[in-house]
Amino acid sequence: MTDHNHIDQYISAQDIQEMEQGYRANLINCLSGPRAVFLIGTADKDGNSNLAIFNSIIHLGADPPLLGMLSRPDSVERHTLENIRDTGFYTINSIHREILAAAHQCSARYLRTDSEFIKTGLSAEYRPGFHAPYVAASKLRIGMKFLEEKRIEQNQTILIIGQIEYLYLPEGLIDADGNASIFNIEPVVSCGLSTYGLASEHAKLPYAKP
Amino acid sequence: MTDHNHIDQYISAQDIQEMEQGYRANLINCLSGPRAVFLIGTADKDGNSNLAIFNSIIHLGADPPLLGMLSRPDSVERHTLENIRDTGFYTINSIHREILAAAHQCSARYLRTDSEFIKTGLSAEYRPGFHAPYVAASKLRIGMKFLEEKRIEQNQTILIIGQIEYLYLPEGLIDADGNASIFNIEPVVSCGLSTYGLASEHAKLPYAKP
Repeated sequence: MTDHNHIDQYISAQDIQEMEQGYRANLINCLSGPRAVFLIGTADKDGNSNLAIFNSIIHLGADPPLLGMLSRPDSVERHTLENIRDTGFYTINSIHREILAAAHQCSARYLRTDSEFIKTGLSAEYRPGFHAPYVAASKLRIGMKFLEEKRIEQNQTILIIGQIEYLYLPEGLIDADGNASIFNIEPVVSCGLSTYGLASEHAKLPYAKP
Repeated sequence: MTDHNHIDQYISAQDIQEMEQGYRANLINCLSGPRAVFLIGTADKDGNSNLAIFNSIIHLGADPPLLGMLSRPDSVERHTLENIRDTGFYTINSIHREILAAAHQCSARYLRTDSEFIKTGLSAEYRPGFHAPYVAASKLRIGMKFLEEKRIEQNQTILIIGQIEYLYLPEGLIDADGNASIFNIEPVVSCGLSTYGLASEHAKLPYAKP
């Protein structure tokens, strides 16, 4: 395999520690590479809806079907985290190009009494027997039951663990082997805190053998 | 916001539970959407190198600079996990199109004594004072110090938490605000277990305000 021939920039732990806080936050947030962004829908106990954009959804396992998501520390008001704790339910909704601007706007710091659904024009959709609202415009929508949270002691971030209860996706997306053509719903990915990208299918590779 | 007008397929928790195991694994693995894949480089205490492909790298925080990655249960032999536990160090290396085939081949079940570096032709690169090998061809390379692991009780998967010690990336990639143009290194993303994609920059959106 040919090695790359660009000139590398080298950054040490010491360099990172001495960076200005915002510069460091931007840089470190970029390093985990592009990943899908989703809208997390919740409602508080009184039914006030909330919608937030997350890029930290992670597959935890298929049996039982678990997804994780990372929440920043609860030292300040975190409406999504509080609603999940209080009600036990949330939704994960995909983002495609046409709703990206509205989805990004959900990252603004609205008051608890201001629903991002109303402020951004993204319609909420409720299904019978499920407390949390879905994003009507999303192509992939997942209804989640909260199971537990794990605190990362080093920085007080919180891994929220949930189980898939309901799944809505376009008819015909799943093939005979169970693979869903997620690239066909044109998922938006993000890199860092402000840069969004689009992803397209490149190759299906067969199960690798020695 | 206009709602979508395709016909939804609806899948319940009961449906998921009744799926054939492989079908379910494929489907659930797709749902978290496209995310960057990386090669994880390690060496055991005797210096035998190992290289594995992971799509579960997650940003945990910038101060201190932490990345997480999810390992499947340690009920069977997991060379990467064992090497990280035994030596305390690992590397995270980006994957671009030209090395994707070799990177995917690292998912084959090689014997402990067979190095994926040699089997796939990806050259290892060692730096003074750091036990784990980097992938010479990768454009973004991160030297990690293992901090701790958290077990997800529901399925015995393990969240590996590490701190960034060294960072190598192409000169000129980081802008004045600290944002690294990761899309410029042409990162490969994956959806599910066998489908790879490419990601490209779409939009930079300003910090959102109410």
